[in-house]
Amino acid sequence: MTTPITFYYEFASPYAYLASERIEAIAERHGRAIVWKPFLLGIVFKSTGAGPLTQIPLKGNYAARDLPRAARRHGIPFTMPPRFPFLSVNAARLVYWAGERRAPDLTHAFFRASFRDGLSLHETGVTLDVAAGAGLDRAAAEAAIRDPAVKARLSEETDAAIEAGVCGSPFFLVDGEPFWGSDRLDEIDQWLASGGW
Amino acid sequence: MTTPITFYYEFASPYAYLASERIEAIAERHGRAIVWKPFLLGIVFKSTGAGPLTQIPLKGNYAARDLPRAARRHGIPFTMPPRFPFLSVNAARLVYWAGERRAPDLTHAFFRASFRDGLSLHETGVTLDVAAGAGLDRAAAEAAIRDPAVKARLSEETDAAIEAGVCGSPFFLVDGEPFWGSDRLDEIDQWLASGGW
Repeated sequence: MTTPITFYYEFASPYAYLASERIEAIAERHGRAIVWKPFLLGIVFKSTGAGPLTQIPLKGNYAARDLPRAARRHGIPFTMPPRFPFLSVNAARLVYWAGERRAPDLTHAFFRASFRDGLSLHETGVTLDVAAGAGLDRAAAEAAIRDPAVKARLSEETDAAIEAGVCGSPFFLVDGEPFWGSDRLDEIDQWLASGGW
Repeated sequence: MTTPITFYYEFASPYAYLASERIEAIAERHGRAIVWKPFLLGIVFKSTGAGPLTQIPLKGNYAARDLPRAARRHGIPFTMPPRFPFLSVNAARLVYWAGERRAPDLTHAFFRASFRDGLSLHETGVTLDVAAGAGLDRAAAEAAIRDPAVKARLSEETDAAIEAGVCGSPFFLVDGEPFWGSDRLDEIDQWLASGGW
């Protein structure tokens, strides 16, 4: 009986998008399920003092070069949405509201809307359109993002992520081992193949 | 005619130590020389707003787990020196003063003193002992670290590193392509093997 890979991600994180396009093949190769855990990176930033990568001197320039290069390396279509960073709280709420079964498709729909199609999830209407396109009932989704219970769920999940040691996006837990960054997926692949080191 | 790999590193960076133990094999495999460029990460931190990884909430805990794991993965002896972070300016000055031919051995001597043998380069005497152990004249080295021209050289090299886009330690330039982090060495290896993507 193997444990699932826990995949923590912020929807406004371009590196998390890149990871979302690769994680399933790696999990499948090793017979692992995935637990999909969107969280609010802004809350983590309050602890770490970090901020949106693209806005940081030197690191922003590096990311602007590294991101499309990483996408090319793995054959993943990539664009930056016109507004960045953007509020992704509604997308994250909807993943928890829609439930585990829908989490993978909904996650891909939101990430691809931003980083493949260049749409702005900052706009609630766009987020709802994407959710509807992924099969959610638009009116019910619109009610859900205002539902205090749904809001509380995302807050709790974000707190739980921090409690689990999540310090950035994307972040992975594999048999209790933490891995931070989309560039660690090859390492996770090797870790699972070899049983660790 | 191939261009060398430029290796930028801060002597108080444990990830740079790990990189220093792997970079030569990768460079040799692809027929590349290495240009050794110690710099002062503290000056880069003034631009990026970052700080010593181990002191940052959440990220510090992650690094404490990730560093020994990365060392185990590559079979590199690893310890954290008793004082961290520490002032590494004298070690960096001595590398430039000693010249390119001595840079590899001196770099290894300083990194291993800290992260293999647990010595404190924060102490000038320890730094000079290590330099003497690596073949430098101790008295001449002691004079060199106070020499305004040597001090100016390290400042200029740090400014040049920032100008080149260095945003952290270790950092690599390979045919004009920037790579940040010891965990990118496999990517550099693949980049050199394939001609890039």
